Amino acid sequence: MIEEVLTVLRRVDAVCFDVDSTVIREEGIDELAKFCGKGSEVSSLTAKAMGGSMTFQESLQLRLNIIQPSLSQVKDFIRSQPPTLTPGIKNLVNLLHARKIPVYLISGGFQCIIAPVAKELHIPFEHIFANRLKFYYNGDFAGFDESQPTSRSGGKGVVIQHLKDKYHYRNLILIGDGATDLEACPPADAFIGYGGNIIRPSVKAKAKWFVTDFNEIINAISEL
Amino acid sequence: MIEEVLTVLRRVDAVCFDVDSTVIREEGIDELAKFCGKGSEVSSLTAKAMGGSMTFQESLQLRLNIIQPSLSQVKDFIRSQPPTLTPGIKNLVNLLHARKIPVYLISGGFQCIIAPVAKELHIPFEHIFANRLKFYYNGDFAGFDESQPTSRSGGKGVVIQHLKDKYHYRNLILIGDGATDLEACPPADAFIGYGGNIIRPSVKAKAKWFVTDFNEIINAISEL
Ligand SMILES: [Mg+2]
Ligand SMILES: [Mg+2]
Repeated sequence: MIEEVLTVLRRVDAVCFDVDSTVIREEGIDELAKFCGKGSEVSSLTAKAMGGSMTFQESLQLRLNIIQPSLSQVKDFIRSQPPTLTPGIKNLVNLLHARKIPVYLISGGFQCIIAPVAKELHIPFEHIFANRLKFYYNGDFAGFDESQPTSRSGGKGVVIQHLKDKYHYRNLILIGDGATDLEACPPADAFIGYGGNIIRPSVKAKAKWFVTDFNEIINAISEL
Repeated sequence: MIEEVLTVLRRVDAVCFDVDSTVIREEGIDELAKFCGKGSEVSSLTAKAMGGSMTFQESLQLRLNIIQPSLSQVKDFIRSQPPTLTPGIKNLVNLLHARKIPVYLISGGFQCIIAPVAKELHIPFEHIFANRLKFYYNGDFAGFDESQPTSRSGGKGVVIQHLKDKYHYRNLILIGDGATDLEACPPADAFIGYGGNIIRPSVKAKAKWFVTDFNEIINAISEL
């Protein structure tokens, strides 16, 4: 099982990471909800969404309609509660970059929250595929960009297929903790389940390779 | 003809004004387009839209897709080029307010540009019915609120019917320069065409009362 993933890893030409609970320790939208005083209402919905009992777009819409974050709330949130990088992620991304392997962040979370994370990891802004919040002139919440593939169920697969078509990647690896990550392989050529922040039983059960420490992947690459 | 309008004016219980080329001298969206360097492209489209050869939502979408105004451009525009009140409008609105007649602004333009105008005329913010621009977190243009009635053909009539239903107005007068104003009567109980900034021949031809100076309306009210 792991061997199939290692075969792809040997020839890897792109790595896509999920963000929430993978690259960062938190679920961005849950933290934003807490910050806006809507934590308990939203976290139960997020749990349901990750479990797969609701379409992603339904859950995103529902959660945002509860939070209704204003521009100033989002700015204050990003300033005062920046996301925490998961231990080992910086070393892993640095190793990939040193080997000239492009790294992408594909997330059902929000671009504005992920952008500082990408910067810290030296991942170009254009390599972020995530949802975009909208605001009115006065800063009131105005919805999200519904044309982003990441706002829909199956959206991560759409982004990965787009990257494969555009850059002709043939050994693209996706690393993530959630059901929406697992279901994006294929088109991803291999999937590594990540359980260092939270373990999703269905992902752990179905992933051909499941790790709880990014050093396992770093070691595997180093040994290739 | 005029007499029919004066009959309503005698019992008037609400007055709705169009904004662009009526309450203010300019077409707000044309000025914003010029400010963003897209003036000539957009003004021809606006002319077509006012002439009635295109649905309002088509024209709004097309014009905004050309302008793509960012939040900082809109802020700079409002700061540096505030709209000019049409001569006489302040006296007319003051007279109506003195007689406890509620005044509304109903516009296919943008709430953020109209809000300072309303303030100057002591019209409550809640009496503005207009379109709302949307922006992304980074300030990029993100579209407009398509759920606003004013973003659609026939939208002014929808707003007026809503006001009549909610407040039981029975002698509501609409004052404006354009085809979208004329077509909102009915449900407006009377329409006064205003040609002090620009004369639209089709409006002039069809309006039962057409004025080029707000003092004509002020005088008529004073004589009632
Ligand atoms: Mg995740
Ligand atoms: Mg007008």
